[in-house]
Amino acid sequence: MTVFELMINRRSVRVFIDKEIPEDVIEKLLNAANNAPSGGNIQPISIIIVKSKETREKLAKIIGPQPWVKNAPLSMIFCLDFYRVKRWAALSKIDFQGEHSLGHFLIGYADIMCAAQNVVMTAESFQLGSVYIGSIQGTMDKIRECFSIPKYVLPLMLVSIGYPKSKPETMPKLEKNIIVHNEKYRILNDDDILKAYNNKYGEFDEDVDAYLEKAYIEVLEANKQESGNWLKLVKKRIKSLDIQNHAQFLFKLRYPTEAMVKQTELLFQQMRNAGFKF
Amino acid sequence: MTVFELMINRRSVRVFIDKEIPEDVIEKLLNAANNAPSGGNIQPISIIIVKSKETREKLAKIIGPQPWVKNAPLSMIFCLDFYRVKRWAALSKIDFQGEHSLGHFLIGYADIMCAAQNVVMTAESFQLGSVYIGSIQGTMDKIRECFSIPKYVLPLMLVSIGYPKSKPETMPKLEKNIIVHNEKYRILNDDDILKAYNNKYGEFDEDVDAYLEKAYIEVLEANKQESGNWLKLVKKRIKSLDIQNHAQFLFKLRYPTEAMVKQTELLFQQMRNAGFKF
Repeated sequence: MTVFELMINRRSVRVFIDKEIPEDVIEKLLNAANNAPSGGNIQPISIIIVKSKETREKLAKIIGPQPWVKNAPLSMIFCLDFYRVKRWAALSKIDFQGEHSLGHFLIGYADIMCAAQNVVMTAESFQLGSVYIGSIQGTMDKIRECFSIPKYVLPLMLVSIGYPKSKPETMPKLEKNIIVHNEKYRILNDDDILKAYNNKYGEFDEDVDAYLEKAYIEVLEANKQESGNWLKLVKKRIKSLDIQNHAQFLFKLRYPTEAMVKQTELLFQQMRNAGFKF
Repeated sequence: MTVFELMINRRSVRVFIDKEIPEDVIEKLLNAANNAPSGGNIQPISIIIVKSKETREKLAKIIGPQPWVKNAPLSMIFCLDFYRVKRWAALSKIDFQGEHSLGHFLIGYADIMCAAQNVVMTAESFQLGSVYIGSIQGTMDKIRECFSIPKYVLPLMLVSIGYPKSKPETMPKLEKNIIVHNEKYRILNDDDILKAYNNKYGEFDEDVDAYLEKAYIEVLEANKQESGNWLKLVKKRIKSLDIQNHAQFLFKLRYPTEAMVKQTELLFQQMRNAGFKF
C-alpha cells in the first residue's frame, strides 16, 4: 500500500491478538518518532515504553475502563519534556522557561503529536494497529506518580499498539469539501451544516443500533472479552437522557458539555502540579 | 521508499522550484488530512488552501520574513474549528462549549496536528517538500481578519509545500535512547545531558560557521534569493550577545526566554479575541 492508501484506510484498532511486536519493529517506530519534525529542532519529547504485564496493568488501572490499554502488547506515553531542556539550558548558563511560555507549550505539544502520528503511520505500514487515548490528560497526576515523571514533564498522549484481531471498516468522515476552504474561510449555512453531518452519520433515529454497532464494533468486541454489556448500558443512557440526534449523543453522553467545561480547572491544576503556569 | 524510510529522511524544505502541484495530488493531500485520526471523530478542523499569488503575498506579509511562504506554490492553514461544531450542536438543540473547555481544545489541537502530519508525510511520498510554520500562532488576529475566519476558529498551524530545489541533509537529532524510557521515566544525570546535546550539535565554538551553514542551508539559500544577508547578521548577533554554546544560541537569540514568556499574554489575548476563554 502507498502512504496515501495507508492513511485513507487507517482506523483505530482496539482489539489485538496475543502476539508480541518484534524488537526491531519497535526500534523503527521509535526512530520514526525521534525523526519527526520539531519546532526549532528543540525536541522537547520523552516516550515511555510500556510492555511488561505489570506496567500495562498499572497503566490500565489509571486510564480506567478501556481494556485495550491492558491488552495491547505495547503502549507509548508521549510526554512534553521541558525537564531535560531546562537542565541542558541551566548547564549551559542560560534560562529556559517553557513552563511559563504558552508558545513553547503549544509548539512542544505539536512536536509530540507529529512524533505520535509518525509512530501510528509507521505501525500501519508494519500491519500493526493502534489507538490514541487522549483521556490520559485527565489522569496526568497519577501517571506522573506511577511512572516517576519529574516536574516540567507532562504525559499528554497515549498510543496503544498491537496486531489487530480484525480490521474494522473506516469511520464515517465529513466530506472533504466541508473542511476545505479556498483562499479564505467560507461560512457554511445551516442547511449545509446539517446536511454535512447527516451525510457523515446518517439519520439518528433511523437505525441507532446499526450505527453504534458499526462505530463501536471494536469497543463492543473488547468489552465482550471482558464480559461487559457496554451496548446495553449505552442504549439505556440514550433513552434516559432523551437523546434525539448525533450531536446530542456526543455532547450529552460522550462529552457532556458541563463536565467538559468543568474539567478545565482539573487540567490546569495538573499542569500547575507539574510546574506549568502560564 | 517505505513509510519508515520516508520518515527517517524527511527534513523541512524551504526552497522550492517554480512548479505547480497537480490538482489530483492536492486532493490526495487533503483526503489524507480528512482521514486523520480525530478524538471522538468530532473533526473540529478546517484547512484554508492558499495557492493564488495574491493570497500567498498577503499571507507572507503577515507571517514576516520567511520568503518560503510566498514562494511555495501551496500553503495550508490548519484551523481548530469549533465554529462549525457549535453551529451543528445548536441546530441539534444541544450546547457545545469547546471554547471554554481546555480538554476539547487540547484534543482538537492534537487532531489538527495529526492531519497536518498526514499531509506532510503524504507530500513526501509524492516527492514534495514542506515546512511547518508555527510562528503563525503569533499572528492569529491578522490571519483571522485576512482570511475572514469567524469566531471560535483558531489558525494554529501553517504548512508550506512545493517541489524542493534540492534535498538538504537531515537535521541532527538526539540519540533515540535519550528520549526513550523503559517502563518508567529515568532522570538523566548532568554529564549524560551535556553529552547528549554535544553529540547532537557538536561543540559550539569548534565550527559555528559550519554548523550554521548546515542547519540553515535552506534559510540561507532562500535568503540569498531575496538578496539578504541573514548569516552575516546572525553571526553579528552571536557576537554581540556573547553566545557561548548551542543552548544560548537557542534561548538567547532564536527564542529569547523573556520574550517567549511575555508572548504568553499575546497568545491568550488572541484566543480571547476568537472567543476562547478557559
